[in-house]
Amino acid sequence: MKTRITELFGIRLPIIAGGMAWCSGWRLASAVSNAGGLGLLGAGSMHLETLDYHIQQMKASTQLPWGVNLPLMYPQTDELVALLIRHEVPIVFTSAGSPKKFTQRFHDAGMKVAHVVSSSRFAVKCEEAGVDAVVAEGFEAGGHNGREELTTMTLIPQVRRATSLPLIAAGGICSGESMLAALALGAEAVQMGTVFALATESSAHDAFKQYCISLPEDATMLALKALSPTRMAKNALFARIAAAESQGASAEMLREMLGQKPAKRAIFEGEVEEGEVEIGQVVAQIDKVESAAEIVGRIVNDYETVRQRMAGLKI
Amino acid sequence: MKTRITELFGIRLPIIAGGMAWCSGWRLASAVSNAGGLGLLGAGSMHLETLDYHIQQMKASTQLPWGVNLPLMYPQTDELVALLIRHEVPIVFTSAGSPKKFTQRFHDAGMKVAHVVSSSRFAVKCEEAGVDAVVAEGFEAGGHNGREELTTMTLIPQVRRATSLPLIAAGGICSGESMLAALALGAEAVQMGTVFALATESSAHDAFKQYCISLPEDATMLALKALSPTRMAKNALFARIAAAESQGASAEMLREMLGQKPAKRAIFEGEVEEGEVEIGQVVAQIDKVESAAEIVGRIVNDYETVRQRMAGLKI
Repeated sequence: MKTRITELFGIRLPIIAGGMAWCSGWRLASAVSNAGGLGLLGAGSMHLETLDYHIQQMKASTQLPWGVNLPLMYPQTDELVALLIRHEVPIVFTSAGSPKKFTQRFHDAGMKVAHVVSSSRFAVKCEEAGVDAVVAEGFEAGGHNGREELTTMTLIPQVRRATSLPLIAAGGICSGESMLAALALGAEAVQMGTVFALATESSAHDAFKQYCISLPEDATMLALKALSPTRMAKNALFARIAAAESQGASAEMLREMLGQKPAKRAIFEGEVEEGEVEIGQVVAQIDKVESAAEIVGRIVNDYETVRQRMAGLKI
Repeated sequence: MKTRITELFGIRLPIIAGGMAWCSGWRLASAVSNAGGLGLLGAGSMHLETLDYHIQQMKASTQLPWGVNLPLMYPQTDELVALLIRHEVPIVFTSAGSPKKFTQRFHDAGMKVAHVVSSSRFAVKCEEAGVDAVVAEGFEAGGHNGREELTTMTLIPQVRRATSLPLIAAGGICSGESMLAALALGAEAVQMGTVFALATESSAHDAFKQYCISLPEDATMLALKALSPTRMAKNALFARIAAAESQGASAEMLREMLGQKPAKRAIFEGEVEEGEVEIGQVVAQIDKVESAAEIVGRIVNDYETVRQRMAGLKI
């Protein structure tokens, strides 16, 4: 399959594994790239030396295209940007900040830049900033989320109409069926988080993976709207947060309830009741831990099956 | 196209217009049925005599299959059920109540029954109740909504997996692209509300239609969670409700703020700032008032275009 995204990044499959904090180290990212998709390191949870190490491991583990997801909201962003440029990382996905600030520097270094948005208004800003592609992520996605609460089904056609940028769909996608749905809506590739967060090669704690694969369909909810809207599992920590929110809790109160590094506690250390379990709605569709290659293979097979079925469904 | 839903209802196209309060009178429903889809009267906003009148007009306006949407939460439900049976209405879509209560009576009268759900847990209950089909409606839909906040992209595959019932997708669907996406996810027909609420033949007030076609993508939000989660436009009434909700307003306080018949005020009487504008996220994709036949024709054309595009997108 050739789309503007596969051409832009030089990948065989239009499948991107989100660069997720505490999940996306070199093991997961290289496994996805080696399976024909695009693997991304998740710099959001990494110190400078950690990211440096993972980039070196990544270079040693794959000859295929790969990249780094870099949230632009941390104090050390400038140093991380310099590190990516020094290492000549081929592709960077930026999020949680303005795409205007670093895109030119990345381009000057010969890197490709995609930026993550939650609305077509932000997608238009990306186009103005000169990014190479945009990731439009719907309300069903795990972790940090947009304030507009636009779902993937409504967001993708709207971004498609608002900009001419190569478009990657994210949120609620974990299968061949949902990949075909996203491509029909106007996307040119898909980014999947949840299904790869629970893969064998993900750095997440095994207790986190086992907890997540057992979750039912109503297991997640968007919380922390007064702080930064975040989709998380409804565990013990969530119950306390939801109770406080229904009483009109302030951002400061919520920050205090979360404590230090709540996502790290859940995802990396396995504290599934007291940490912040950032995971998407599709978690209900995932009931086992598989390798990235198995996941990619299943998605490709199922995509072909549904593509052939839809080809015959003439109106 | 033949699917289990087109066969069940005897319709040419897998397109159903939701039976919407204050929008779906005989003019809209018969226009959709005459265009090859399934038109539904919206009994939710009708007194007994009004529904009786619309059913008689419907019978005079189309020879093709049609039905009635009946929310099961009103005091006069028993009388409305008796009226539908007396008129031998061919198809009934029930919602907002248990599918167990009336399905057998409808079946005894030779009627087909579909029930609207917001989760696969409720879909399984529908299967146990013996309904003929299930409508799974995602978070992006306008008006009353599920507590699970499952989006169409995640809900449809989950209902598909949980039951073997013929499945209709709703929420976020207004185009040939989104129809194809829903069918790829496992649906066998789609139900569209917003796009038909704004059709020429809809009973909605012209001021409501004009207001809605001008709305941007972030114009709606799910509110009234303490009462009954409802997606509505962010107008003056919404602003007061959202402010009260952020202070932890009770159900009783919210009921008082809404006043008498808030949806009627907005939709039927055109009070677009002070009434409850129940409308879906896809409202941003609709920028003109068209006839039901034009809408259906456009959806069919666009579906064929995207079907052919996807047929060529081999992996």
